[in-house]
Amino acid sequence: MEGTRAPKGISETGDPLLLTPGPLTTSKNVKQAMVHDWGSRDQAFISINKAVLEQLPKILNGSETHVTVPMQGSGTFAVEAMLTTFIPPAGKVLLLINGAYGQRAKTIVEIARRKYVVHETAEDRPPDLAQVEALLKSDAEITHVFAVHCETTSGILNPIVAIARLAEQYGRRFLLDSMSAFGALPLDVKTMTVDAVAASSNKCIEGVPGLGFVIAREAALKETQGNATTLVLDLYDQWHNFQKTGQYRFTPPIHVIVSFHKALQEFLAEGGQLGRGLRYSENGRVLVEGMQALGFKPLLQATLQAPIIYTFHMPRDPRFVFQSFYDSLKVRGYVIYPGKLTVADSFRIGCIGRINAAHMRGFLANVSEVLAEMGVTRSEVAA
Amino acid sequence: MEGTRAPKGISETGDPLLLTPGPLTTSKNVKQAMVHDWGSRDQAFISINKAVLEQLPKILNGSETHVTVPMQGSGTFAVEAMLTTFIPPAGKVLLLINGAYGQRAKTIVEIARRKYVVHETAEDRPPDLAQVEALLKSDAEITHVFAVHCETTSGILNPIVAIARLAEQYGRRFLLDSMSAFGALPLDVKTMTVDAVAASSNKCIEGVPGLGFVIAREAALKETQGNATTLVLDLYDQWHNFQKTGQYRFTPPIHVIVSFHKALQEFLAEGGQLGRGLRYSENGRVLVEGMQALGFKPLLQATLQAPIIYTFHMPRDPRFVFQSFYDSLKVRGYVIYPGKLTVADSFRIGCIGRINAAHMRGFLANVSEVLAEMGVTRSEVAA
Repeated sequence: MEGTRAPKGISETGDPLLLTPGPLTTSKNVKQAMVHDWGSRDQAFISINKAVLEQLPKILNGSETHVTVPMQGSGTFAVEAMLTTFIPPAGKVLLLINGAYGQRAKTIVEIARRKYVVHETAEDRPPDLAQVEALLKSDAEITHVFAVHCETTSGILNPIVAIARLAEQYGRRFLLDSMSAFGALPLDVKTMTVDAVAASSNKCIEGVPGLGFVIAREAALKETQGNATTLVLDLYDQWHNFQKTGQYRFTPPIHVIVSFHKALQEFLAEGGQLGRGLRYSENGRVLVEGMQALGFKPLLQATLQAPIIYTFHMPRDPRFVFQSFYDSLKVRGYVIYPGKLTVADSFRIGCIGRINAAHMRGFLANVSEVLAEMGVTRSEVAA
Repeated sequence: MEGTRAPKGISETGDPLLLTPGPLTTSKNVKQAMVHDWGSRDQAFISINKAVLEQLPKILNGSETHVTVPMQGSGTFAVEAMLTTFIPPAGKVLLLINGAYGQRAKTIVEIARRKYVVHETAEDRPPDLAQVEALLKSDAEITHVFAVHCETTSGILNPIVAIARLAEQYGRRFLLDSMSAFGALPLDVKTMTVDAVAASSNKCIEGVPGLGFVIAREAALKETQGNATTLVLDLYDQWHNFQKTGQYRFTPPIHVIVSFHKALQEFLAEGGQLGRGLRYSENGRVLVEGMQALGFKPLLQATLQAPIIYTFHMPRDPRFVFQSFYDSLKVRGYVIYPGKLTVADSFRIGCIGRINAAHMRGFLANVSEVLAEMGVTRSEVAA
């Protein structure tokens, strides 16, 4: 029996494959780059960091207009820094919410005591652009619009170009959480006006976690002095210090940044956003077709689905026990992700990170075997 | 000539030795631990993180009373989180300042709009405890006292036990920035009452940068709900989520934490604070005696000096050019640190990290050679 088993999931460093929204499977070289010491004020590190900061705006075609402000911590640190630095105390933000990350932005602006209004849709529905327009028309107080690019709660791709154009049409500023999409999905600041885009090291660029960043329109960033509600999350001050000294104000996660630099080199070698987006799209296609063949039903219609993370309805058959399914796949080298939906009982599978279509096929073969072990047939999964 | 040169500084991974206040030279095994992938919600990582959080309070003899709240980012993220979480909106803090890190705390409370009063002394002077007592007596509004354990601006050791006792005597809470001292200098919460101690991964525990933490008295932490001015820096919420789920609210710097776990194991193997403090004290003794023999004058009198980082007066001889001195030592494998003093022109040399007395002797031999190359004699250094 052993000989006929489906292939075990295994990364370049012998670890289980992470089919999650991140932290992700990364290459061996990306991690191996961390096995050195650097001083935070030494030229070798400063040069590596500078290369990272200069590379990132190119990914969204913004090297002439946009600058990178890195933020120690995580993606959420970057999002809170973006919202509290860009929305002035007298501002008001329209939050487009269809999942947990939109909700998190609402919590952030509530704590920061910024005025806000919410346009919320179900987790499997994009914003209603007519309603967004009506809000922009009727509420002159709104200064900013915030959206999530790919909301990993469901995996939905939000219509960010249309949202940006509405904001521009009505003279409002646009702030984007592109955390799980940046580097994999098209994003071109020459075709849409966006004041700030937040993302992190450990998503589609395939670095390790510990660094968030905001790619900001420099002209807009210059207007933000004094807005921030904290010292460490003040993007203006962080950027201003780089202008003056080329250095971080506070100790940076040096190893994470050196590793991220290596990840960016591998990203470029793969053909940048086009190459990476292609691999992830192929991963996603193989995944969703294979899961459907096994009887699983995706939550989203194909036109709303980003090739980042896929949500599947939980089979109703009582023999399908999710924890057993999760644990059996983990033992076989594949880490999947629980659901976060309020609209339906579900689980999630990511298709990003250092994984390819062959890994996805190996995963599907394992899913098939685990279902057989559980005694659940295709028709029972689909029921 | 080559054969007679002093030994080049070289770490276990072939890097220059960092004689700085951190990030520091770390062991190879500490960095090698990062060459794997982990999911942030997976049991292997959760167990490692739990071990880290449980170990830290033991270092200050607080496992029965204190809990660790980790904070992604850096030490300053932990300090801002501590000040904004522990000082309530109606509170007032007495800031004891004798260097840049005390000044930074002032900036943080100003931005957070907390009331404060400052007791400031020169960078080479500890706080005047009689004046501190007079302030506590006369200003009933003061709820908290804040001090810096070892102020790396000069390397001065502040009298934290005496400060804590004064705070307790007058019924005020004590908050401590022990960033550069934690793990190397004695700190026992059974002999002094302290509500929160902030430190980070990349100082005397000898991990890599990317994680701050606050070791908090649990009873005091429980009173802080709703105080924080941000989502990400809210220590109460961070702690509460660990209580509920054992997990971080937002993506943690997984690799940094796994590496920190390894660093803690090496710390314990060295005999904990006693063993590490002994090695650093020996490093410092060799350093300061050797530098004095070469003519350099330390800023601080010996009784005020912590064995962490040493400040030396800049020689006045015009042949001593600091940038050349720095660069020559860097080429020889030793990274020293510029000065930050306002009271005197100076530079700094750290004695912490994965370095020992033999490294220090090698460093001194190189300093001697560099001085000879510059054509500066002992009497000219001392002049």
